Amino acid sequence: MTQGTITAGSLLRTIAYPYDLRKLDTSQLEQVCKELRQYIIDIVSVYGGHFAANLGVVELTVALHYILNTPKDKLIWDVGHQAYGHKILTGRRKNFYTNRTLNGLSGFPKISESDYDAFGVGHSSTSISAALGMAIASNLLGEKNRHHVAVIGDGALTAGIAYEALNHAGTTNSDILVILNDNNISIDPNSGILQKVVSHSGNLFESLGFKYYGPIDGHNVNEIVDKLKEILKVPGPKLLHVKTIKGKGFETAEKNQTIWHAPGLFDKATGIINKKVYNTPQPPKYQDVFGKTIIELARENPKIMGITPAMPSGCSLKYMMEEMPDRALDVGIAEQHAVTLSAGLATKGMKVFCNIYSTFMQRAYDMVIHDVAIQNLPVIFCLDRAGLVGEDGATHHGAYDIAFMRCIPNMIVSAPMNESELRNLMYTAQLETTKNPFVIRYPRGKGVLTNWETPMEEISIGKARKIKDGQEIAILTIGHVGNFAVEACKELETFGISPAHYDMRFVKPLDEELLHEIGQKFSKIITVEDACIKGGMGSAILEFLNENNYHLVVKILGIPDSVIGQGSTEELQHLCHFDTEAIVINTKELMNRGDLN
Amino acid sequence: MTQGTITAGSLLRTIAYPYDLRKLDTSQLEQVCKELRQYIIDIVSVYGGHFAANLGVVELTVALHYILNTPKDKLIWDVGHQAYGHKILTGRRKNFYTNRTLNGLSGFPKISESDYDAFGVGHSSTSISAALGMAIASNLLGEKNRHHVAVIGDGALTAGIAYEALNHAGTTNSDILVILNDNNISIDPNSGILQKVVSHSGNLFESLGFKYYGPIDGHNVNEIVDKLKEILKVPGPKLLHVKTIKGKGFETAEKNQTIWHAPGLFDKATGIINKKVYNTPQPPKYQDVFGKTIIELARENPKIMGITPAMPSGCSLKYMMEEMPDRALDVGIAEQHAVTLSAGLATKGMKVFCNIYSTFMQRAYDMVIHDVAIQNLPVIFCLDRAGLVGEDGATHHGAYDIAFMRCIPNMIVSAPMNESELRNLMYTAQLETTKNPFVIRYPRGKGVLTNWETPMEEISIGKARKIKDGQEIAILTIGHVGNFAVEACKELETFGISPAHYDMRFVKPLDEELLHEIGQKFSKIITVEDACIKGGMGSAILEFLNENNYHLVVKILGIPDSVIGQGSTEELQHLCHFDTEAIVINTKELMNRGDLN
Repeated sequence: MTQGTITAGSLLRTIAYPYDLRKLDTSQLEQVCKELRQYIIDIVSVYGGHFAANLGVVELTVALHYILNTPKDKLIWDVGHQAYGHKILTGRRKNFYTNRTLNGLSGFPKISESDYDAFGVGHSSTSISAALGMAIASNLLGEKNRHHVAVIGDGALTAGIAYEALNHAGTTNSDILVILNDNNISIDPNSGILQKVVSHSGNLFESLGFKYYGPIDGHNVNEIVDKLKEILKVPGPKLLHVKTIKGKGFETAEKNQTIWHAPGLFDKATGIINKKVYNTPQPPKYQDVFGKTIIELARENPKIMGITPAMPSGCSLKYMMEEMPDRALDVGIAEQHAVTLSAGLATKGMKVFCNIYSTFMQRAYDMVIHDVAIQNLPVIFCLDRAGLVGEDGATHHGAYDIAFMRCIPNMIVSAPMNESELRNLMYTAQLETTKNPFVIRYPRGKGVLTNWETPMEEISIGKARKIKDGQEIAILTIGHVGNFAVEACKELETFGISPAHYDMRFVKPLDEELLHEIGQKFSKIITVEDACIKGGMGSAILEFLNENNYHLVVKILGIPDSVIGQGSTEELQHLCHFDTEAIVINTKELMNRGDLN
Repeated sequence: MTQGTITAGSLLRTIAYPYDLRKLDTSQLEQVCKELRQYIIDIVSVYGGHFAANLGVVELTVALHYILNTPKDKLIWDVGHQAYGHKILTGRRKNFYTNRTLNGLSGFPKISESDYDAFGVGHSSTSISAALGMAIASNLLGEKNRHHVAVIGDGALTAGIAYEALNHAGTTNSDILVILNDNNISIDPNSGILQKVVSHSGNLFESLGFKYYGPIDGHNVNEIVDKLKEILKVPGPKLLHVKTIKGKGFETAEKNQTIWHAPGLFDKATGIINKKVYNTPQPPKYQDVFGKTIIELARENPKIMGITPAMPSGCSLKYMMEEMPDRALDVGIAEQHAVTLSAGLATKGMKVFCNIYSTFMQRAYDMVIHDVAIQNLPVIFCLDRAGLVGEDGATHHGAYDIAFMRCIPNMIVSAPMNESELRNLMYTAQLETTKNPFVIRYPRGKGVLTNWETPMEEISIGKARKIKDGQEIAILTIGHVGNFAVEACKELETFGISPAHYDMRFVKPLDEELLHEIGQKFSKIITVEDACIKGGMGSAILEFLNENNYHLVVKILGIPDSVIGQGSTEELQHLCHFDTEAIVINTKELMNRGDLN
């Protein structure tokens, strides 16, 4: 399918860049908004992507590009999944059908994609710091009459960095405008967090040194235009509070904003989401295995709690939040707090499953070290979306967690190869006898078992699993990619090649007994991980082999040392050379390689 | 010197634990405060440690332990360097002379040291999250009448996690009391940051859902006692604003709070700080080489800026802040914002030296990845206090930075062996031709050169330095520990052993040309780094050797995989086996080791 199938409205078609927009009369802006909203509905229904947030900022987008002199004026979209209208108005309408695909447009603003993308975003709450930096630089460089605008949602304002930035900005005389896009929701309804702030927002922002304007109706484009004209003349830091409705203009999305955050493909006429229909039972998503297993465990163990920073649907903690609202908490976008809160709970003997996407765990790294690991508190970190995540691309891949977690003392670092293993790791982590912080990383998407509700059993910490015996080459995998090795071994059998395969289960502690056996029995190893090669599991195994004076040929497969963009997960795993095919090819190559040189 | 030389006052001597304190009449509390303050002056003047902050909270400490039922009630001292009075009143007076020494008391609260230390601290701003976790657990466990108190300074309130925690706490009905210890200063005067918050503090905290009380006089112990009695009866989250004076009761410390934060040893009668007197010129501290070199560079290059999160004295950016106040900024305790602000500045072509202690850089890890490295913005990260830092101990060692930085794409990771090298790396990092984010890590304390103001020259990125030729064994060092290897080589000469020695300068990119030479010429390598072994430089070299099929014997020296406590830096380097002696011993052992097995 090409972009030819989606036709923009007659006015929108005349707007390639914002200077085309600025030629219009204000009386035409409502029509532009109407056509832009329709175009977003048309294209997302067919090509997928983020939806409701983009409908919510149509008028804001049009008004901002109408009034600002972008790209000289800097416009930063916090989080960025609401920037589709921005992209469509800034030279990318015709390519927009490639959104979130391999080599296509990024689903988020990206500096290298357009001069209009002032700052790359993806994780929330960075926009105010970035805008302030640009404003300070602009002052120093003697630029005149430049505006620096950050558009940030109320959900994103719960994150500490947003507050740090407001606090600093409020003490400067920088010309920055923060637009609070208040739709009273982030990805999930934020359970009361920040509602007090927003209802007293004048107080909060004024106490931080900002001039406060609003609230105004975010769906009245002319009101926004008039207000922007007025307040952009005011020097210094200022905040405009704009009330919007996520999903605006698409009735069912307005009513069910969580589902319509990123609904997949849908019928725009009926509002029915296209669900894939399968003829056979499908494996569950790992997130649902987590979400259902924690309830099973929590029913038996009253010490168990669940914590999520704003991802109750994404990580499936929502099920426990419904059944045990006192024991499963959404703390808003606040990863740092989530981890130290978990540490505080752990000092009282609670067994906390703190579920944070791998990429967002980077936000709480110091708390993992300082509040959990140094004190050796047995907090359980479930890192969902670990490894390559597909369409969300560079900012969202969970590539670094093995490297940044395994260097921390006291940490247990594990990954399940399938649903049963995830359940067993969760069971093991919550036992009273487990005294250490415990990382369980697992990927976005589905597992491999249709009958996944297996009885749970304790795993001996640091013990690997032998998947199959073999000769010459040992394949050591961690996590879900073990299934790629299983497939590869089947294919290799047809060539008469039979490597051994071990599911390591733990990167830390490593199964040293097994590694000694392997060091003595095999001359060649392939390691496979859905994580960065530098400092990852392969590196840990090299450390072991070196320490114990084994000199084997080791081929390490994983994510290379470069920024990986968006694409389907399978495409990216293929590009990164750790899919089934890569394992087959590397095994064959290694078989043909001579002895140690 | 033993504790026998410091005598506590007659009333203080009767107080071993808080229950002794609680037996006293309120009329005696002023005398307790007087004696406690004197004891702190007596002992810190002779044994060293943090000073002014401890004098500031004497009355608060006495009042809290008098009213609360510690350790059942939980009392958490944010940052913790102000907890000396707390330690002295909770069973540790007689051992207090061992404060901050090897195997002695920690300079910070530490769970494993005392039941009265409810939560380990060191980095700022974690106390509210931890207290909230304990309060939530207490509710779930059905405990009755338990109080959870976090004492946090105004400086620490600039950090995002504190705000995340206030925001969450304000939506709960948890019985937590936050005491705002408002001395209008953190370690350095925080240049206006948060002053607006504090002056409008009622607004801020009330807008976050807290009941606000105060401000009251933090040096009137009876007023504090009365107020605590009153407000601890009030359910839900509450905040008491207490005004204190850092250094209270020691006149010169009140006047110069930055110097008296941790003054070293001093004469308590005259207030004169004991400066070591040297007969010969001494090398400068690395921090001062940074602080003076950035000015030299900034005078030539108008694009250069300096950013510090609340450490202008500690990292010596204060010199530039004095000379070029528009171009050197203290953003308060706000590491996350500091990094993304730097990224924003970099998008406008500024060359930002963002100076953050290695241990505090953990706070901004996501921003380094997401806002700097993914966009490949050429921000320069100067990581002061990298490696073992000595007396501040476990929470402050900069042990993990090589591991957590080298796994990030686009990053350059370097460390200077001496002052000239630091200058050359800084010079190289700010060149227009340097397009990548650039880490320069260097340790706490002195360099090795007395004539350190050498002309600056560009270093080819990724090129190592040969320090000496040699046979059989190559010693590869990174950073200041290269000087240990120089010493070791001298000593080894006397045994007729002559290893080669290379200063790698860069962990990333590695000098691959050199490593190929070494791989071909040597059979044995020793690597030395003041950083964690897991995932560190040694590990990076193993990855290179493996990738290129070199099978050498490699001995990796560095910080082992355990929590390292406090002691002098030299003691700790010795314990961790990477000092001069360790290099000598390991070289000899390696010489005696046979061929590859």
